Amino acid sequence: MNIMDYDTVALDDEKSALVIIDQTKLPYSTELLELTDLKDIWDAIYMLKVRGAPAIGVAAGIGIYLEAKKIARDEKEFSAFLGKFRQAKDYLDSSRPTAVNLSWALNRMEQVVLSHRNQSIGKIVDALRREAQEIRNEDIWVCRAIGEYGLTLIKDGDGLLTHCNAGKLAAVKYGTATAPMYLGKEKGYHFKIYADETRPLLQGARLTAFELQESGFDVTLICDNMAGMVMRNGWINAVFVGCDRVAANGDVANKIGTSMVAALAKRYDIPFYVCAPTATIDMATPTGNDIRIEERKPEEITEMWYTRRMAPEGVRVFNPAFDITDNELISGIITEYGIARAPYSESLKGIFQRKVSGINHQ
Amino acid sequence: MNIMDYDTVALDDEKSALVIIDQTKLPYSTELLELTDLKDIWDAIYMLKVRGAPAIGVAAGIGIYLEAKKIARDEKEFSAFLGKFRQAKDYLDSSRPTAVNLSWALNRMEQVVLSHRNQSIGKIVDALRREAQEIRNEDIWVCRAIGEYGLTLIKDGDGLLTHCNAGKLAAVKYGTATAPMYLGKEKGYHFKIYADETRPLLQGARLTAFELQESGFDVTLICDNMAGMVMRNGWINAVFVGCDRVAANGDVANKIGTSMVAALAKRYDIPFYVCAPTATIDMATPTGNDIRIEERKPEEITEMWYTRRMAPEGVRVFNPAFDITDNELISGIITEYGIARAPYSESLKGIFQRKVSGINHQ
Repeated sequence: MNIMDYDTVALDDEKSALVIIDQTKLPYSTELLELTDLKDIWDAIYMLKVRGAPAIGVAAGIGIYLEAKKIARDEKEFSAFLGKFRQAKDYLDSSRPTAVNLSWALNRMEQVVLSHRNQSIGKIVDALRREAQEIRNEDIWVCRAIGEYGLTLIKDGDGLLTHCNAGKLAAVKYGTATAPMYLGKEKGYHFKIYADETRPLLQGARLTAFELQESGFDVTLICDNMAGMVMRNGWINAVFVGCDRVAANGDVANKIGTSMVAALAKRYDIPFYVCAPTATIDMATPTGNDIRIEERKPEEITEMWYTRRMAPEGVRVFNPAFDITDNELISGIITEYGIARAPYSESLKGIFQRKVSGINHQ
Repeated sequence: MNIMDYDTVALDDEKSALVIIDQTKLPYSTELLELTDLKDIWDAIYMLKVRGAPAIGVAAGIGIYLEAKKIARDEKEFSAFLGKFRQAKDYLDSSRPTAVNLSWALNRMEQVVLSHRNQSIGKIVDALRREAQEIRNEDIWVCRAIGEYGLTLIKDGDGLLTHCNAGKLAAVKYGTATAPMYLGKEKGYHFKIYADETRPLLQGARLTAFELQESGFDVTLICDNMAGMVMRNGWINAVFVGCDRVAANGDVANKIGTSMVAALAKRYDIPFYVCAPTATIDMATPTGNDIRIEERKPEEITEMWYTRRMAPEGVRVFNPAFDITDNELISGIITEYGIARAPYSESLKGIFQRKVSGINHQ
């Protein structure tokens, strides 16, 4: 059994378990975890056993549902049930304080409890299970829609480049940047894919190269500083990346190095696409310069992974986790409601109009 | 005593020793090696204890001189001396078969033997010592001249970025890309220097960050994929890199990633300078496309340095050691005979005319 035949995050309701692929073990060991205790689920999110904004949201939804099922065994009265539910929710919410999808999914689950307050605890738990599955199904649908739009931009045989991991391992299925690749493969397309290793945390080497190789793609791993050369060699027809946040003007915050890939793509006339669920588009942030960039600890660069120190003791290090890609470098922002093109301040509004109307066909 | 107060390569004639800084131990241990046996000198070059084209040439010159001194104890007759000298020369030449400076220095030493064939063995050994010192002094002079020309392009307080190690550790003193930094420091200038770590072999992290920190510079280590961000932030006033070969049209082969730094510098209107001793300018190579790029083993990317595998078993890897920077991205090529500017096919010829005439003033 190939580990990538499993979903990244799933519910096994019979075993009352959250089932995840343990990403801290990849690529040297593939392990499915069945988590039944809230403490273990908290740990899994905190320890990055499950990671990627969409996957974390889905895991939290399933996790709080499983806990509600336990609470329901003892508490048959609504206010007592709600009290314990909220306690569990606050606890789970503390596992990754900055992950927006975590709070978002947990709040959505709480709304289900509140809106069913006049029904039996058993009915509430049923509704929670449906909502957790709905959050999961929505993620699959969003990624699939992004993949379908993305696939209209490329053709069989294309060389594709991606940075970091916005893959299946960051979501439930398909991923965002990888969705056009997975859907193309379903159609029998053969792509030649290049994965940037993505220093310092090597998500491209550990996760993207792994999931694409396991799924049978023709994938080649390169160091981040080789992306220019593969482009100059004419090997790349399109770049797909994910994103952490899109500003209202189309500037994109994503994993450090993304803006360099974009600038190189521009130089070599290669289309550069950002795959962005509408949940990541923040119309309240005017431009990329309004996005604060997290800086992480120097040891990620100087010591992590290594058998011995690879940089001098005490050297100053600049270690930003993300960078800003200027909208002028972006050929299109692919959402589940269509592809936005420049000028983005207009086209992104259009995407949200389509979302409100529920239109996702081009 | 600070290790960087020593020259990278030196002769201790009293001890009959080649004295080098052991670069395989940097940055976690600083060690001077005194090598007296030819076998140990061969090993030092082969094992990269001494590295960088100029430094290897100087080490070879000193190494063959020391061996000639030993041979002279037993052989007082020219043809016997020459036979053993050539045997030692061929042996040393086999330590790094592709390093041009190695053969170049050894051939130069052999010419000294041949041109002194009518003199005593003692006189020949004296001449060899002078030639070895001359090769070393020339390297110091060339780097210093490059530094002086480079320094005219920047000012006190500037932010500078470099890639890989074209530093003092690759030469005897000053280095090439670092020469303007060292000379500026002698004048009391304060630069803010950013060093790309330079995957996969991390020469930037291990060597450049080390030598600049030890020498008292304000140096910040970044991953290669962060160079775009520091440029976008306005922190960089100029980029200096070394080079492995310059083609007649000004295209430059240098450590992988150099072309990305150059493209980014162009985008952010930052001057990008290549520091090139005339020995690295190859007028017989018309363009960068005529330079064959060495590909190295995948394990450098997937396993080396790491405590555990960081990429999946058997993943395909593309690992070019160098890339080509198109001449249009280069603001100037700084040589010991002046600064060449576009169009390079003309200006590089001018540099060689100055070299023939011995003119190195602007």
